[in-house]
Amino acid sequence: MTRAVGYADRHPRQKQIVFHPIGVVRSAFREPENRDWDRVVSEILVDRKWAEGLKGIEAFSHVIVLFHLSRARGVNILVHPKRRMDLPLVGMFSTRSPHRPNPIGLTICRLVKRRGTRLTVKGLDAIDGTPVIDIKPYIPDNDLVKRARAATWVYRLRSPGRRA
Amino acid sequence: MTRAVGYADRHPRQKQIVFHPIGVVRSAFREPENRDWDRVVSEILVDRKWAEGLKGIEAFSHVIVLFHLSRARGVNILVHPKRRMDLPLVGMFSTRSPHRPNPIGLTICRLVKRRGTRLTVKGLDAIDGTPVIDIKPYIPDNDLVKRARAATWVYRLRSPGRRA
Repeated sequence: MTRAVGYADRHPRQKQIVFHPIGVVRSAFREPENRDWDRVVSEILVDRKWAEGLKGIEAFSHVIVLFHLSRARGVNILVHPKRRMDLPLVGMFSTRSPHRPNPIGLTICRLVKRRGTRLTVKGLDAIDGTPVIDIKPYIPDNDLVKRARAATWVYRLRSPGRRA
Repeated sequence: MTRAVGYADRHPRQKQIVFHPIGVVRSAFREPENRDWDRVVSEILVDRKWAEGLKGIEAFSHVIVLFHLSRARGVNILVHPKRRMDLPLVGMFSTRSPHRPNPIGLTICRLVKRRGTRLTVKGLDAIDGTPVIDIKPYIPDNDLVKRARAATWVYRLRSPGRRA
């Protein structure tokens, strides 16, 4: 027998999702200041229990790192991007602000080297001690968007700002 | 007075990280089969409490959606990508397999339309009812990698496979 089920039946809302760090960032930088993170070289120490899970990752030039913005306290629903008052007030989901409901950082980094469970990466904007949640390969067929359009304020980020 | 602190002092290992869904996927598809997800149009219903957090998101053509692969059971440390036996056995962190320690899906989608807390997206490979964890704007300056190198098996994914 089939029974008609409504949307709420099919989707009992899940209250919480629990994750466990799979590794940690080791970096010379311990404070989340603005800096030229693109040039920063740091390490991801993956837990030994997941060592085998890295097999073959060195065949990729770039990885997507998901990490816990463990220092972020509270949510700012509306923000000026990069705290620049000359940029418009927009919703946090329109920005990469850490003060979001689920503070997950996402950065695409160059994978410089792997030595066992130790990955050397370039461009990871995460401070020393940051818990790493996931590492994924950057796959151009999935992840490369050639003609993306961003909000106009994004293009003003490149200029030094605070001039308005 | 300063006190010398070691690495372990500075980094008490965090045992777990708790997130709460910020919305849900509504889609015509209810099973995680292989299909041409690139063409699939679906909706993300963001919780009303975060409505303001979407302000300005329609200025972006693409968004990065993080979602909970809530159907994935268990971890497969070594996998044949897409279960294709003709592709090499690699670690899960070298693939986008859902059977990973923290089952988070990450997909860059076209943002077709926003109506209040309802986002219409194209290319989201998530089934109906999938909990959404975060939505971020796709910002080419951060996220576009023009000359990425992927493992050779990635290029074989494009061919129909199972021929080896």
